[in-house]
Amino acid sequence: MHFTSEATSDGVLERLFTVDDIPGVLWSPAGAIGARPLLLVGHGGGRHKTAPGMALRAHRYVTALGFAVAAIDAPGHGDRPKTEQDDQRVAGIRERVAAGEPLGPHIAHYNAELSVRAVPEWRIVLDALQELDCVGPDGPIGYVGVSMGGGIGVRFVAAEPRITAAVLGLVGLAGPTDLAEVAARITVPVEFLMQWDDEMVPRDSSLGLFDAFGSTEKTLHANPGGHGEMPVFERDSSERFFTRHLLGGAAPATADDPAVAGG
Amino acid sequence: MHFTSEATSDGVLERLFTVDDIPGVLWSPAGAIGARPLLLVGHGGGRHKTAPGMALRAHRYVTALGFAVAAIDAPGHGDRPKTEQDDQRVAGIRERVAAGEPLGPHIAHYNAELSVRAVPEWRIVLDALQELDCVGPDGPIGYVGVSMGGGIGVRFVAAEPRITAAVLGLVGLAGPTDLAEVAARITVPVEFLMQWDDEMVPRDSSLGLFDAFGSTEKTLHANPGGHGEMPVFERDSSERFFTRHLLGGAAPATADDPAVAGG
Repeated sequence: MHFTSEATSDGVLERLFTVDDIPGVLWSPAGAIGARPLLLVGHGGGRHKTAPGMALRAHRYVTALGFAVAAIDAPGHGDRPKTEQDDQRVAGIRERVAAGEPLGPHIAHYNAELSVRAVPEWRIVLDALQELDCVGPDGPIGYVGVSMGGGIGVRFVAAEPRITAAVLGLVGLAGPTDLAEVAARITVPVEFLMQWDDEMVPRDSSLGLFDAFGSTEKTLHANPGGHGEMPVFERDSSERFFTRHLLGGAAPATADDPAVAGG
Repeated sequence: MHFTSEATSDGVLERLFTVDDIPGVLWSPAGAIGARPLLLVGHGGGRHKTAPGMALRAHRYVTALGFAVAAIDAPGHGDRPKTEQDDQRVAGIRERVAAGEPLGPHIAHYNAELSVRAVPEWRIVLDALQELDCVGPDGPIGYVGVSMGGGIGVRFVAAEPRITAAVLGLVGLAGPTDLAEVAARITVPVEFLMQWDDEMVPRDSSLGLFDAFGSTEKTLHANPGGHGEMPVFERDSSERFFTRHLLGGAAPATADDPAVAGG
């Protein structure tokens, strides 16, 4: 891992790095010493590792919870070179938008294709991150990603036993791979986000993916609106989810509450 | 409204009351003066207004959020006299349990029948509560109830414009009345809770009810497990929901976050 730049603002140290040729960013508390929980953030399609929403989210986890937060550019995104395949994908999206055709099947196909490259990259970067003092080899690790970051995330979390909790969403079963079989291998706690009127992910496809997760603790949050209209309170909910699962203090599984348990 | 007893513990004043012949309980901050948000709590089937889980929930809303919290015994429950109809219902449940038959359809039928009595009672009690200094005529009012308290709650919230936010759950469309039509009349924010493996409420029936709510802001939380196995973190989530909606500080509707909005 090579650090290529660093800057501090509002108590957060932001360091750009590369691992092999994968560009990434690590946010951590300025001046803090010692291992802490690590949150990996997968960006959405067409975005990149340091988009404003990514940095804002990272700052909250660093300042409020003391986490280290890392993101990488997905293949074909941000500072990555674009392959012919990437160019075809972008052209394909433009054609479909111009023709008024649904993007969902195309995106699902692309997420599957991209994950073949992205999952091994995440694992290599995670190896390197765990060698840092501020992360360490034994700490809890979370992953959060929706849309393209969710499509990659399902496959990454299923493949990576070091991930201990995940927030995933805006992705469904529909697509070229049997994602139900992949999801069934995930057994860590999952908070799964869906948009009830998602124009890119069919409702049954989202519900089917939630159903497929092998996790004992999984919770589905569905809200009205389209793919880009997730309510901001879900970001707060994700923070509480990772507080519970990466900082300990997990509550007992079932409310022993007659108001809840009554028939 | 006649207060029949009062006691204070841990900073919470608990007063039993009757309105007409409806027995109720009001929890409020001991020594506090002035109007505050009111939360109405509907208990589950076979439970009553001061069951331990009810009191525990009330204490949290009173001490952490400064709310007034009220509950009443549903018809045929707690301190209420039982009618012949109530006795038949209990006998019917016992027969079905003994025969190993599913309870769901029976419970849905009973909730519909009970609501005919329970909804007008809630409205009369609410009239009386609003005359108290600690509630007042203009404050925000929430309702929380799952299972039987959810079945009554859907009908109560639909009928009662004074309710400004509701947590409902463990109830579905299936039953003798067209609950979709009722739910469509609800336009206030709703957090809707379902158990993914609910043995009493079919999954599609819960999803259908969520779909039917007329509210612009509605959020579905689904968790694995049966009817009585709702995770305790949903109780915390309900508190945050009412904090947002009854104490103000409502967040903007949509996260303007590229990590979320990306394709």
